[in-house]
Order: sequence, then structure tokens, then C-alpha cells
Amino acid sequence: MLHLFYHIDYAQLGGLSNKTRSEVCTPFLQWCQTWNQNPEIQLHTYSVLGNKADLGIMLLGPDLHLLNQAETDLLKSAFGGLLKPAYSFVSLTELGEYMTSEEEFGTRMQEQEGLSPESEDFQSRMAAFSARMEKYRNDKLYPLLPPWPNMCFYPMNKARGEKHNWYNLPFADRKKYMGGHARIGQLFAGKILQLVTGSTGLDDWEWGVTLLAKDPVQLKEIVYQMRFDEVSALFGEFGPFYTCLRLEPAELLHRLVFD
Amino acid sequence: MLHLFYHIDYAQLGGLSNKTRSEVCTPFLQWCQTWNQNPEIQLHTYSVLGNKADLGIMLLGPDLHLLNQAETDLLKSAFGGLLKPAYSFVSLTELGEYMTSEEEFGTRMQEQEGLSPESEDFQSRMAAFSARMEKYRNDKLYPLLPPWPNMCFYPMNKARGEKHNWYNLPFADRKKYMGGHARIGQLFAGKILQLVTGSTGLDDWEWGVTLLAKDPVQLKEIVYQMRFDEVSALFGEFGPFYTCLRLEPAELLHRLVFD
Amino acid sequence: MLHLFYHIDYAQLGGLSNKTRSEVCTPFLQWCQTWNQNPEIQLHTYSVLGNKADLGIMLLGPDLHLLNQAETDLLKSAFGGLLKPAYSFVSLTELGEYMTSEEEFGTRMQEQEGLSPESEDFQSRMAAFSARMEKYRNDKLYPLLPPWPNMCFYPMNKARGEKHNWYNLPFADRKKYMGGHARIGQLFAGKILQLVTGSTGLDDWEWGVTLLAKDPVQLKEIVYQMRFDEVSALFGEFGPFYTCLRLEPAELLHRLVFD
Amino acid sequence: MLHLFYHIDYAQLGGLSNKTRSEVCTPFLQWCQTWNQNPEIQLHTYSVLGNKADLGIMLLGPDLHLLNQAETDLLKSAFGGLLKPAYSFVSLTELGEYMTSEEEFGTRMQEQEGLSPESEDFQSRMAAFSARMEKYRNDKLYPLLPPWPNMCFYPMNKARGEKHNWYNLPFADRKKYMGGHARIGQLFAGKILQLVTGSTGLDDWEWGVTLLAKDPVQLKEIVYQMRFDEVSALFGEFGPFYTCLRLEPAELLHRLVFD
Amino acid sequence: MLHLFYHIDYAQLGGLSNKTRSEVCTPFLQWCQTWNQNPEIQLHTYSVLGNKADLGIMLLGPDLHLLNQAETDLLKSAFGGLLKPAYSFVSLTELGEYMTSEEEFGTRMQEQEGLSPESEDFQSRMAAFSARMEKYRNDKLYPLLPPWPNMCFYPMNKARGEKHNWYNLPFADRKKYMGGHARIGQLFAGKILQLVTGSTGLDDWEWGVTLLAKDPVQLKEIVYQMRFDEVSALFGEFGPFYTCLRLEPAELLHRLVFD
Repeated sequence: MLHLFYHIDYAQLGGLSNKTRSEVCTPFLQWCQTWNQNPEIQLHTYSVLGNKADLGIMLLGPDLHLLNQAETDLLKSAFGGLLKPAYSFVSLTELGEYMTSEEEFGTRMQEQEGLSPESEDFQSRMAAFSARMEKYRNDKLYPLLPPWPNMCFYPMNKARGEKHNWYNLPFADRKKYMGGHARIGQLFAGKILQLVTGSTGLDDWEWGVTLLAKDPVQLKEIVYQMRFDEVSALFGEFGPFYTCLRLEPAELLHRLVFD
Repeated sequence: MLHLFYHIDYAQLGGLSNKTRSEVCTPFLQWCQTWNQNPEIQLHTYSVLGNKADLGIMLLGPDLHLLNQAETDLLKSAFGGLLKPAYSFVSLTELGEYMTSEEEFGTRMQEQEGLSPESEDFQSRMAAFSARMEKYRNDKLYPLLPPWPNMCFYPMNKARGEKHNWYNLPFADRKKYMGGHARIGQLFAGKILQLVTGSTGLDDWEWGVTLLAKDPVQLKEIVYQMRFDEVSALFGEFGPFYTCLRLEPAELLHRLVFD
Repeated sequence: MLHLFYHIDYAQLGGLSNKTRSEVCTPFLQWCQTWNQNPEIQLHTYSVLGNKADLGIMLLGPDLHLLNQAETDLLKSAFGGLLKPAYSFVSLTELGEYMTSEEEFGTRMQEQEGLSPESEDFQSRMAAFSARMEKYRNDKLYPLLPPWPNMCFYPMNKARGEKHNWYNLPFADRKKYMGGHARIGQLFAGKILQLVTGSTGLDDWEWGVTLLAKDPVQLKEIVYQMRFDEVSALFGEFGPFYTCLRLEPAELLHRLVFD
Repeated sequence: MLHLFYHIDYAQLGGLSNKTRSEVCTPFLQWCQTWNQNPEIQLHTYSVLGNKADLGIMLLGPDLHLLNQAETDLLKSAFGGLLKPAYSFVSLTELGEYMTSEEEFGTRMQEQEGLSPESEDFQSRMAAFSARMEKYRNDKLYPLLPPWPNMCFYPMNKARGEKHNWYNLPFADRKKYMGGHARIGQLFAGKILQLVTGSTGLDDWEWGVTLLAKDPVQLKEIVYQMRFDEVSALFGEFGPFYTCLRLEPAELLHRLVFD
Repeated sequence: MLHLFYHIDYAQLGGLSNKTRSEVCTPFLQWCQTWNQNPEIQLHTYSVLGNKADLGIMLLGPDLHLLNQAETDLLKSAFGGLLKPAYSFVSLTELGEYMTSEEEFGTRMQEQEGLSPESEDFQSRMAAFSARMEKYRNDKLYPLLPPWPNMCFYPMNKARGEKHNWYNLPFADRKKYMGGHARIGQLFAGKILQLVTGSTGLDDWEWGVTLLAKDPVQLKEIVYQMRFDEVSALFGEFGPFYTCLRLEPAELLHRLVFD
């Protein structure tokens, strides 16, 4: 997954007529069309609020070469001559490390409810659980991002402080902490779609968080509520936040380029 | 709410006559007029002291798309070709989390003064309290910013240190801390108007603080006094400060552009 | 008070003859003359050592609008087209918070020396003390900066660490700490003139320190000695240091611009 | 060893035809050919993901002058006019400090297995050990980097915190910590090739880590697993990560330059 | 002392023939000649490894105005139009604060060896000690830097942490710590020449360290070994490292400029 944020060089645009601007922008529309037609690629385009960046691009696909090709195709075009790098993030989708496994689910049914693995109840519930987890795992590895109007991206680390050190905790403790976190996420079901991708060894932070929202107020709500959750309060370290408005390519050019 | 700070590219201006400068600036005057006429938008324009930025713009409105439209309209104009991004801040107005509720006020009248909820005294005081809080809540969510001559903006966080961690405190403790803070604010009533907007999940800091003053000395006084308040002393983390002088658009161009 | 530091764009100068350089620089000489003639303004101009900046300007005056006008007048001129912002600092002169008051001085004479407030001795010493403090207060609020050849500017904070937190100390402790600091300052009387201006709520640090010296070695000596003073050792946090050589405007152009 | 990362100035490229681009790029192909033919030099070229950089170059050779010559030859060429510095790292290959010595190995055979140094068994095992270590030492000092498709570079320090201070630990403790680290590395044999080079006294971090992978997912896996290893959890401090895709020079130009 | 590091603007060079490059570089050769002929000035020129900077200049002289004149003379020339500031450091040579004094040496001879100050032995040894210290002091204040081929510069601070605070230690403790440091330095006699200059009150760090080496491997060795010395392990804070190769002016232009 690539998150790309660019400044537009408005000093260059200042002297140009809308006709010329339109010519410079044609390659952007073509680029969006090409990559939107590629069934392996998900492409979302944004106007970024404030002046940390102007144009935001989110690319999701199965192969880093394909993503790099998309990225450089844009930069090499006449439109790319208007862009200056602002920020980017390289990450991979990943399974949640602390999900309940089939084994754990089975043990729990046996120990807490006294169900025998041979019983029909056990087996039908296990089948349902497996199907749910299969869908969940699939959603984590191959997420389909809906075109919700607001997006916020930020990277994060887990602390390795002298007192609170995430990487020095036993797995069970980390799993418990993350459970509390998940419960807050569930309060925002239908309002916020959250995608956490892994970037340890790939970018300067350990995870990237992509929040999609129907209402921008919810972006503030969920992150604020989570900050009181113990795992964030004690272990969360947060990088820059990029708040974006989703616009289709043609609208986006009207927002960002045409006078 | 958008706070936007720009450098002016004086290398470009250096070679231009005042006549040409005037042409380049016309779009800025038109832009100010357009957005000032928009009843949904509050727009304030500033000259920024020192060289962290030259031009400061504060935009307040009900919809992020409207604010983003205003921002990009300026950048896309001929005047925008003179601007280079210096700093910005994206935030939303919000209710104070630690305000006294109607319920708390009623309980207090009952417990501390022995008033019965059915008594006339209780009911008239509750009505007055409710009206006051209603106005207060409205002022927080829909503030009307007066054209005071001095403005200072800075972002801030509450600490999540190994010893002092705001997000790990019980609500009651946080409420008590914030009460002390409010009392200092009241000492500056009529001299300082303070607007705190929320940016957790939206920008790199958790809050933006906008201080308006009639006398710039008061900007220093209030922030210095607050720094000794326990909630700031133990938990406050402060970002960059932008100190600004309010000027109407035409005056501002005379200050910043015309030789 | 405004401290302004600029880079000179030597890439622009590279192609220019000394005649053209001279034309571009005329506005700087005029600007210096204009503001030097303004009785409300003190203006000092410097060449900055190393490549953090090239040109240093120090402006002191009674009104932020006047200082901002001076700043932008320079930037808008043809000479301003050569300047790129390097650093700046916005601050206000202020009274020392920990000075001995007339009341304290009187109490001390009564308690330590048994003098009666009605005695002639008490009254004459109090009059002398008051006159001295009046001059001291006046020097703090309305300093007259001499044209000493070396200047160093740096900003500073008092720490709010988890162990050592200045803003959590009682006033009496802070006063005692600052007393030790003042004694070191006195060792450098006649060699170093130190002006501390307040910038809490105005710029990114809480104070700006301007040191004027006749001999640059003394800049190193005083700051090094102070670093062992407890108030600096435990609470001082220091920003960037700008070391400058004072030159009159015409000399300064010969140093910085003419080949 | 030199790791060099550059931005390509796409604002310059924007106006150029592919024919002109091709002319500007010829010196890059010649440069690659020249240095690839130099038997003393290993050269690898990369496209960098995201917008921290565009072009990545890794140079390994016996002499800093030779590496500096290669670096400046590229910058001085017409192609160099398109490059803007993004990041770099200067380091030297080094022996592992915590490797088992022949002496330790011998002592261990004597003490743990009761073997006499005169025995044939002792001597043949020692000969095998020596040969293995000789190869290992040679691989550390004169590594031959294979053309694996994915590369990630990051610099790192060992902490000197108030609680966990690597440089204050006895040698034996450090050796034990590093042993755990090495065991994780072995789990990725054949998937990840890791080269750690020393840069204390040469660059801003103490070591540079170059990871080569056949599958980019392994880059994330190994660094994530190592983060839980005690030596990383307690003592590791990590700089920026540059994730790269290896491309032969001609392919690389098609990726980065030709429209 | 001035350490100056510059980027060369290769985008400007890209379009120039070697003949034009040569014209632009003539002022650099003249500048080197002029200042090399000045008996008060020591000038060393370097090519910098990696892309933190390209050109490194070290200037040592008795007067800051002279150094500033040299610095600006270069920048104002046609060659200066090719330079962009990368880093610099302003410092003064200084006596070691923790050197053994004549008095200490005398006391030691009396107390540890029972020598009478009147004895011939005492007096001849004291004379030898004084001569040695006189030379040492002279070398510290007026160092003569040899033209060794490798140079590394880095700035440093002594920590003022909450646990380890150098500036809060008694003089005797600091002296003891520094003694251990000096002993490591002596192990590298003839291989490394180390010059520590003071910059408290002059630049952003408290000291600048200039290491000259005949073999670049020794730069890594000495800094790595020192890092385990207690004074570095507990109190050392290090800034950026600039690793340089010494080249005479004409060679340097061939390395950095001519294609």
C-alpha cells in the first residue's frame, strides 16, 4: 500500500491560463483512468486540508513494482512537473496478530461450556467461527476500501520507553491490551472504517492507520476516545496526521488547479 | 476551522513595479470580498511578526469542503503564485468536556443547599443556569470571533509521559485540573478571548489555541501565568507560536506587498 | 523586539556586476537611514558567522506595528528579493520577576538591622534603593543597547521535566535560584551586556537572550560559567545560537555583498 | 560503503520530450557501465518506494576516494543536474565484535567435552571451526552482495538511556544479548541477507543495516520479529527506512524517467 | 574557528561546459591562494562523503572578522553562486579545563615522593613539566593542523539529564572522568589528531570535535572505543558527523566540478 501526498507548485500555476492548466492536467486524468481500470489496483484521490500537502493519493495493490510503476508514471508526466513531494508511507496489509484462533475458540467452548469437540453444537459453531474469521482475515489482507468522503492517515509506533515498553511485554498482555482497543473500534462500526497496515522494516513508523469516515467529526471522536484507552495512553506514539477530502479526479482538478 | 500561514516569495516581488504588484494582488482582494460576503464563513487576515510566515489567514465555517474550497481558490489565483506554505492547522470547534452539567448543578443545589427540585428557587436557578450553559455551548460550537487587533495561535498536546500521563487520569482528576485553568482565563476576561479547538485525529497536535487580544502584552501575560497552573506545568506540551497583527485586506497588502 | 536573521541568495548575486549589486543594495542603505532616524526605534545590523544566516537585524521599539512595518519594508524592497528567511524571534522587554521590592528591602532593614522606618538612615537608604530600582526597571523595560562589536542571540526555556519542573516550584525557590544566576552576570559587568526579553505566548521559546560583548571570548565564558549554575544545570533548555559581528550598514554591504 | 538516495527533479523533466530525456540519461548508463566494470567496486541501483527518494544507489569498494569519485562523477554529469540529495550513509564493513574466537571454541571443547588439545578430534574440529570463521570474517569484511530484488536500508544506534545504556554494559552481557539477535537472523537464512556496517565516527548513526530480500514481506517479518528480541526492545534506536526495488540501469530509467 | 560545509548546486552545473565550469571555478582557486598566503590563517579544503554536503572548508585564525571576511569573500564570488549552505560550526580554541596544574604537580611530588621544593630533583622535574605544559597549552590555543588525508567533524554536548547531569557534578568528578577519556586518546597517538574547540554561547552545541586521521578506519575505531568510556557512555551527546577527504584546491575542483 502506498499513501502519497504532494504539494502543488502554485508558483508555476500562477502564470498559466486555464487552457494551459487543462493541458498540463490531462495526464493526471489519463493516469487515474488507467489505474482505475486495472483490476488489481485500488486508487483513491483526495484534496488535503491545510498546507501540509495539496494532493493525496492512496494506492493498494498486490505487488510493489506495480505500485512503484503507478507512482513514477504520475511523476514523469507533464502533471508530475507540478508536484513536489510532501509525505509518503509504504506499508503492507497484514493479519491481526492478536485475533482469536480456531484452536483458542475450540478450547474455550470445551472448557467454559463443557462442549465435546464431537458434538454437533461444537462443530456447527466452529464452522461459523471459521467462516467469520476467514472473512475477517480476507478483509485484513485484501481490504476493499469504500469511497467514503473523509479520510485521515497517520503513522504510529508502540512505545519502547524505559518504563512502558510494548516489545518487552508477554504476548498475553499485549493481546489483552489490544482487546480493549478493538472494543472502541466496534463503537464506531458503520461510521468509521479503520485499516491498519504494517510498516516495520519498510517505513519510519511501525504501522499506518487509514481512517475512512462519512462525517469528519467522527475522525476526531474515534482518535480522541482511543487516546484514553490504556494501550494508546501508555504505548501509542503518533506521527503526522493528513486529513483529506475524497474527490473524483475531475472534481479534484477543479478544486486544486483550475482558477 | 483552518489556520493558514504563508511566506510571501519576495524574490519574485523584487523585480516587480508597484503597478504589476497591484495586478497580482487584485485576486487577493476579490477573494477576501467573496468569502467575507459568504454568511457561513468567518475570515480574518493578518500580518505575521518575524519570519516564520508573512501572511496569516483564519477561516471558520460549517463544512470542510467550503474551507478547502476557500484555501485552494486563493492558492490557484495569480496571488497564490506568490505564496509558499509555512504552517497550517486543521481543527473543529468542540464543547468543553469538563463543563458542569445541568444534572451536576441540580445535585449540588440539593446536596449543598438542601433545595428541593420542586422549589421555585431551585427551578428558577436551574433555568438561569441552563440558559447560561446553552449560550456557553453555542459560543463554543459556533464562536463569533471579534476583530481584535492581535492574535496568537499555537497548538498543544496533553502529556503522555512515563510519570505524568493525562490520558491515564480519572475523569474527576482531569476535571479538577481544568477548573484551575478556567479560573486564570477568567482573570483575563475582556482582555483576552480564547478559543480552543479540537484536532485529535485531524492534525499533528491535539488542540489549537487561538488567542485574541486588544493589547499584545496580554498574550504574554496569560500564557505565562497559565504555565504555572498545574495542568500546564505538568501536562502541557506546546507547539510553535504564530504572533499576528490583524489588518484589513487592503491595509494588509500595503504592509506586505507594496513598496 | 524583533531579531531577524536572513540568508542572502548568493545564487542570484553570482551573475551580477558590482554596479548592479550596488543598485540592489541602495534600498538597504535607505532603509537603515530611515529607521535609524526614527527616534522610537533602535536598529542594529550584523554579519552572522557560519552559514546558519548571513544578515542579522535587531529592532527594538514601542509598538509591534512599527516593527512589523520595518520588517516588511525591507522585504518588499529590491534588496528584499535577495533575502531568504533563516530565523527570527519575537519578544517583549519585561521587568525581572524576582527583583527585590521596596517592601522587602524595608523589611530587611527593620529585621536584620533593627532600623526604624522613621529613622533618617532608613529613609535615605530607602530613597537610594528606590532610585536604583527605578533606573533598573527602566533599563529592563526601555533598554538602550550600545553598539558593542559582538552579539550572540539565543532563545531558552525553563524545563518542565518529570523530575525538574521550574513551573511547579514555589516562587521563593525560583527567586533563590535566580539570585545565583544574577551573581554570575555581575562578574561580567562591563564585559557583557545581557538583555533577557520575554516571549512566552509570542514565540516558540519562553525567553530570548541577547548578549553584547566587546570581546567574543567573553560570550563563551559567560554562557559556559552559567551552565554550571544550578538554575541552568537543572532547568535551562537552550535553542539555536546566532553569533554576530556588528557592522554599520555600508561596511556590512561590503562584507556581505560587494565582490 | 556508500548508500546514496536522490530525488529526481520532476519539475525539470516535465517540459522535456523523451528524446531529450534520453540524452540527459545517457551519462547515467555510462556511469553504471564504468563502475560496474571496475572489479574493485560493487554497484547496485534501485527505485525507491514512496517519495522520501526516487533513485537509490549502493556502492561498495576498498577505498573512500574511489567511492567519492563515483559519487561526484554522477553528480557532475548532465544527469546529475536532475538529482537532488535525499539521504546518504557512510559506513565501513567490520568484523562482528561478539563472534566466538578460536580460543573460546578450544576452551569450550576442553571444558565441556573433556577433549585434549592434542587429540585428533580436537584438532580436526578446530580446523573446521577456523575455516568457517575465516569464511565468516571474510564475508563480513568483503561481502559480495547478490542481486536480490528487494532492499531496505536503515541506520541504527544502541541506546544510551538513563536506564538502559548499552555502552555501560560489560562485554559478556552485550555478547549474550547479541547471541539472541543472531538466532533470529538464522531463521531467515536464504530469505534475508543482512549486512551490518559500522558508522560510529563516520555518520550520524552507529550502524547501517542493509537487508536484501527475495520477497518484500520478509523485510517486514524479520524487522518485526527482531523488535521483540531483548537487544532491540531495550537498546535499539532506529533511523529512517528506505525501501527499494532493484532494477538494472536501463530498466531503472524506464521506471523513473521515460514518460 | 569556522567549519563550513556546502552543497554544490549541480542543477546549475548540469548545463555548463567544462570551459564555463572552469571560469566559474577560478575565483575559488584565487580565494584559496589568497587565504593560504595569509600567515594568520590556516585553510583546509575537503570533499565530503555522502550527500549531507559536497565541499568542506576549515578555517582557523586569530580574529572572527578575518574568518567572516574569508567566508563571505567566497560566497560573494561567482563560485559562491554555486554553493548552498549545508552546515557550519563556530568555535574557539581553548585550554583543557582539567589539565594538571604546576601547583598540583608540585604538591604531588612533595606528598607522594617526599621531595622538597628546594631540591634539585624537584626543580628540574618541575621545569620539565612546565615546559611540557607550556607546549601543550600552546598547542591547544594555537594548534597547527597537519594536512592529514581524512577529517571527521562532529559537535557534542555534555548531558544535563534528570539522572546524569554533567553540569551538576563537582569539579573533581569531572576531572576524573576526563582523565579516562584522555587515556583512550593516547592509544591513538600518531594515528588520530584530535582538536576539541569550545562553542558554548557561540553555536548550538557545546564543543566541536575535529578528528584528523591518516587512515579512515581509525576515525571509526577511536569514536567507537570512546563511546564505551564512562564519560561518553553517560554524558556524551553527539550531533551530525561530517566525514571528509582532504584535497588540494585544484584536485578538489576536479573531484567536485569538472565533468
